Amino acid sequence: MPPKPLDYESINENVKKAQYAVRGELYLRATELQKEGKKIIFTNVGNPHALGQKPLTFPRQVVALCQAPFLLDDPNVGLLFPADAIARAKQYLSFTSGGLGAYSDSRGTPAVRKEVAEFIQRRDGYPSDPEFIYLTDGASKAVMQILNTIIRGEVDGIMVPVPQYPLYSATIALLGGTLVPYYLEETANWGLDTNELRRSVREARYKGLHVKAMVIINPGNPTGQCLSEENLREVLQFCYEENLVLLGDEVYQTNIYQDERPFISAKKVLMDIGPPLSKEVQLVSFHSVSKGYFGECGQRGGYFEMTNIPPETVDEIYKVASISLSPNVPAQIFMGLMINPPKPGDISYDRFVRESKGVLESLRRRARIMTDGFNSCRNVVCNFTEGAMYSFPQIKLPPKALETAKQAGKAADVYYCLKLLEATGISTVPGSGFGQKEGYVHNHYFVFFFYPFFYAIFRLNQNYFSTILRVCLD
Amino acid sequence: MPPKPLDYESINENVKKAQYAVRGELYLRATELQKEGKKIIFTNVGNPHALGQKPLTFPRQVVALCQAPFLLDDPNVGLLFPADAIARAKQYLSFTSGGLGAYSDSRGTPAVRKEVAEFIQRRDGYPSDPEFIYLTDGASKAVMQILNTIIRGEVDGIMVPVPQYPLYSATIALLGGTLVPYYLEETANWGLDTNELRRSVREARYKGLHVKAMVIINPGNPTGQCLSEENLREVLQFCYEENLVLLGDEVYQTNIYQDERPFISAKKVLMDIGPPLSKEVQLVSFHSVSKGYFGECGQRGGYFEMTNIPPETVDEIYKVASISLSPNVPAQIFMGLMINPPKPGDISYDRFVRESKGVLESLRRRARIMTDGFNSCRNVVCNFTEGAMYSFPQIKLPPKALETAKQAGKAADVYYCLKLLEATGISTVPGSGFGQKEGYVHNHYFVFFFYPFFYAIFRLNQNYFSTILRVCLD
Repeated sequence: MPPKPLDYESINENVKKAQYAVRGELYLRATELQKEGKKIIFTNVGNPHALGQKPLTFPRQVVALCQAPFLLDDPNVGLLFPADAIARAKQYLSFTSGGLGAYSDSRGTPAVRKEVAEFIQRRDGYPSDPEFIYLTDGASKAVMQILNTIIRGEVDGIMVPVPQYPLYSATIALLGGTLVPYYLEETANWGLDTNELRRSVREARYKGLHVKAMVIINPGNPTGQCLSEENLREVLQFCYEENLVLLGDEVYQTNIYQDERPFISAKKVLMDIGPPLSKEVQLVSFHSVSKGYFGECGQRGGYFEMTNIPPETVDEIYKVASISLSPNVPAQIFMGLMINPPKPGDISYDRFVRESKGVLESLRRRARIMTDGFNSCRNVVCNFTEGAMYSFPQIKLPPKALETAKQAGKAADVYYCLKLLEATGISTVPGSGFGQKEGYVHNHYFVFFFYPFFYAIFRLNQNYFSTILRVCLD
Repeated sequence: MPPKPLDYESINENVKKAQYAVRGELYLRATELQKEGKKIIFTNVGNPHALGQKPLTFPRQVVALCQAPFLLDDPNVGLLFPADAIARAKQYLSFTSGGLGAYSDSRGTPAVRKEVAEFIQRRDGYPSDPEFIYLTDGASKAVMQILNTIIRGEVDGIMVPVPQYPLYSATIALLGGTLVPYYLEETANWGLDTNELRRSVREARYKGLHVKAMVIINPGNPTGQCLSEENLREVLQFCYEENLVLLGDEVYQTNIYQDERPFISAKKVLMDIGPPLSKEVQLVSFHSVSKGYFGECGQRGGYFEMTNIPPETVDEIYKVASISLSPNVPAQIFMGLMINPPKPGDISYDRFVRESKGVLESLRRRARIMTDGFNSCRNVVCNFTEGAMYSFPQIKLPPKALETAKQAGKAADVYYCLKLLEATGISTVPGSGFGQKEGYVHNHYFVFFFYPFFYAIFRLNQNYFSTILRVCLD
């Protein structure tokens, strides 16, 4: 009998090629162990609420009221909700026709897109137009839509930093394009070197690829570095010279844990440079409600802003968005609340500031504890997590440990991440899932990475580090 | 200067090819007019809340409490929420780790997938396994994911009913596959004839296509017919013989407006047939919280159930779902509430039944008013809307009217839908957006279709029909 259309041998090869390590072998094994009753700490993905971060009160109050608009007429509503949450909910409901249960425009509710434009303008000091801002079901979906607009086939190359967040490698494979790696330099705090960019694009073109776009993740995921203004200028100049769209993944823009290199958006740097670049370089910037101090991952809300993209293309992107009708409306409200939070004088202002500062300060503290903890271990080095939510240590393994993994038929990092999981319940991601320089072996030590979401430190304290070492090096 | 990567001439051709009439030219013009201050009634898409349908109280209470879990500890919560909503919210929160703000498993929360399996088992009388049920951000996203798994390129054909809901044509174009139309017979109440299916597949294979799947929409969108058990048997037999996956779009399964042909699922008919078909035919069935009496379009919740799909493929689908992390969690709760509503004896039961019956009876009444209204007009015929949410009248135009449209450089249906919009503010979809038989012209009358969501009748009463006729036939 011939294979059926949904038998494994029949399905789309690009589907098979796509690899997504963040929920790959390690995650699947962790889920199995959890089913068997083992306590698992999932540090494989930035999912703060799953690790105990409490949602901020004010945005949840507003969205709860939008979900239950009949409460707004209840005389007792004031016993459970503050007046400014009630007012804000009424305002959002007045902007929708049909409340949260109606599809919005496929680009998102105009009122929230306007709030986003005002936020960008406040942040960057340059005008932003809601017509070029689309709301989405999270930033991942936004990235996928833009890559789908760009990639026509295998000859189209997309430059992606390595190590990278595997959304990019997976999506490029799924869409049948080609990933063009540029390597970040671990010994220079995961720095982005323009010589390396030039090498990367030259090599790709030599292979016959049309290199069409370059991705930056700022702050870095999984690498945690913040790009300097100077570095962003160089990147924009490079994109201008090489005729590349710049895709700016800026979802961690409020997750900054040092003061020397504050977040600066690619859009602002581009506008600062002025013409011709500011009129010419095509830029798409992404943001999300899943990170920052909101951490509202489960709500699935994001936006992208398009700069220097011609209206005909914007219309095509609109058309494709419309095929799935609209992004979910509750998360659009979360986005509005995130980028336009309570103001001084509002009833909920103090509480909101207290809660959000609490989250950010705790993250900042843990970024430091985590990096210091790793660096205090023998054979482990870890760049300081300047931003984002991850630490990405390098652990050198003795030859015998490498040999053991080899005999088990596994990559060394996968093997020891599995052992760590079995021994401690900590679910990490092996560094190879993010990409590594080829042949990266020196002095008989193989280098590999963990990807532990540093909330875990809260629960595990110092034992964490010694456990890792015991598991990996004994 | 060479075109830039996001200039119109550079972008993915499949993006350009995709057409989505439901939010096409008519919708865009309607949005413009709305901006200019004109009152628009959007009947172009099934969006009940936007046209005044109220959300059901109980599910909104539960989700509001899940969004604001701090209310559960408030001594006043009982003043605003009934005890069973509180209990249900606590139950859902206990099933998640981190509440609505945490990513769930990429297939959806196990507890809700279990509820869905139990619902399917109650509905069909056959077991259903949560491992083969995936929750999604609405049924559209689910359909897109399955088509992406199937389609490898242009030679892969997907059989789609014509007229069809343009999600299918748009997605197939976007994925670079080929749409293989089979025509529904308007004079036989939009019946599905197996001779036509055979003609369709034969013709496609003659052209060199690999026909891989067949879509049914039951109840029909936009055509409103309910498939009989006999017809479903024939379809399944056909899929078995021709080695096709059956994609069963069953999102309107509770929108039934007659008693002769109740909804029956493709899964049930397949299991009733027994082996070998019940073990062999690959079936994916889709459902949504956007339709039925919930009508919660803006929440974006859906599921698909896979039957006879091998585990390796199920794993691939899981992997691809995981790239965008998880469907939005609030809509997963809505799905749980929809397929597992309050039971007799629950505090909220009577209210829930009253509200949901109210919605369905009103839809049923309007289905009748709408069809009768159209059929009372000269030169208009309209099959009775047995199910779904749309009426799809055929309006015969005199040659002079056709000539006028031609001179304006527009398809006749587009031209008169635009005129209707300008004259009345009613935003419809021209029939050509759903596909029509080629060369469908007889007796010098051109046939075209409207797609008016029949909520509109509520607001417009009989003037609606005379207006349409005045606009089209004068």
